[in-house]
Amino acid sequence: MLTEIREGKTLGSLVKHITQETINLYAEASGDFNPIHVDESFASGTPFGGTIAHGMLSLAYVSEMMTSAFGQSWLSAGRLRARFKDSARPGDTLTVGGKVDCLEQRDGVSYANCTFECRNQRGEVIVAGEAIVRLPGSKKQEYGPE
Amino acid sequence: MLTEIREGKTLGSLVKHITQETINLYAEASGDFNPIHVDESFASGTPFGGTIAHGMLSLAYVSEMMTSAFGQSWLSAGRLRARFKDSARPGDTLTVGGKVDCLEQRDGVSYANCTFECRNQRGEVIVAGEAIVRLPGSKKQEYGPE
Repeated sequence: MLTEIREGKTLGSLVKHITQETINLYAEASGDFNPIHVDESFASGTPFGGTIAHGMLSLAYVSEMMTSAFGQSWLSAGRLRARFKDSARPGDTLTVGGKVDCLEQRDGVSYANCTFECRNQRGEVIVAGEAIVRLPGSKKQEYGPE
Repeated sequence: MLTEIREGKTLGSLVKHITQETINLYAEASGDFNPIHVDESFASGTPFGGTIAHGMLSLAYVSEMMTSAFGQSWLSAGRLRARFKDSARPGDTLTVGGKVDCLEQRDGVSYANCTFECRNQRGEVIVAGEAIVRLPGSKKQEYGPE
């Protein structure tokens, strides 16, 4: 958990190595066995040229970072905007990082607006976006529509 | 794959049953073993009152629906906005649905703006949001910043 939440504060980063086994496990856990993820002979004949990880796997890493930083505040409710730029592949090492971009107060509720990105070992962005978390001590209030 | 993409077209829906085993598998696949997900004795002492599924698991189902509907167009690049409203728990049955909200053309590129939601068996929204996919036949172009 972050002990101090202020603008510019970096969130802890995560490093994750992707193997075909990781992807197979994710397929089993999510129930998404699309051959682009799990069948190399199929995937090698597609424009991807081989299997790719599920896009949501990299978002899972982002969420893990957010949970480590914000705990229950993130787990209870949050918002996410994500732009998928590229696919993670077996053999890739992903690094997820983020920071508190700004703090905001709306209707007596405090929010931390964070930016995040997940890059591969060549520095290419796999997914980037924003995550918004309601901070503790705010009065309980549902997020309204954006 | 959708054979016809038009405004109002519903995307195929998915029904998924969540068990503690599903959550444990997801923890293994994502590497996120936070005790709120996998340790019932810990989780029962928190405001959640028991283990909860990883939020990204429900988004994985949304992504599976989008892949079924749009195939490579979704897998190559996409955008997602998600609002997490509640947690899925062991024993829950989640239904994911969505539709093409509107078609849009920007700089010669066609996009399908879709809305989605994932509800539990009581009709409570777990996560809702929007997913944007670039349609085939568009000239290749990276998504710019929002």
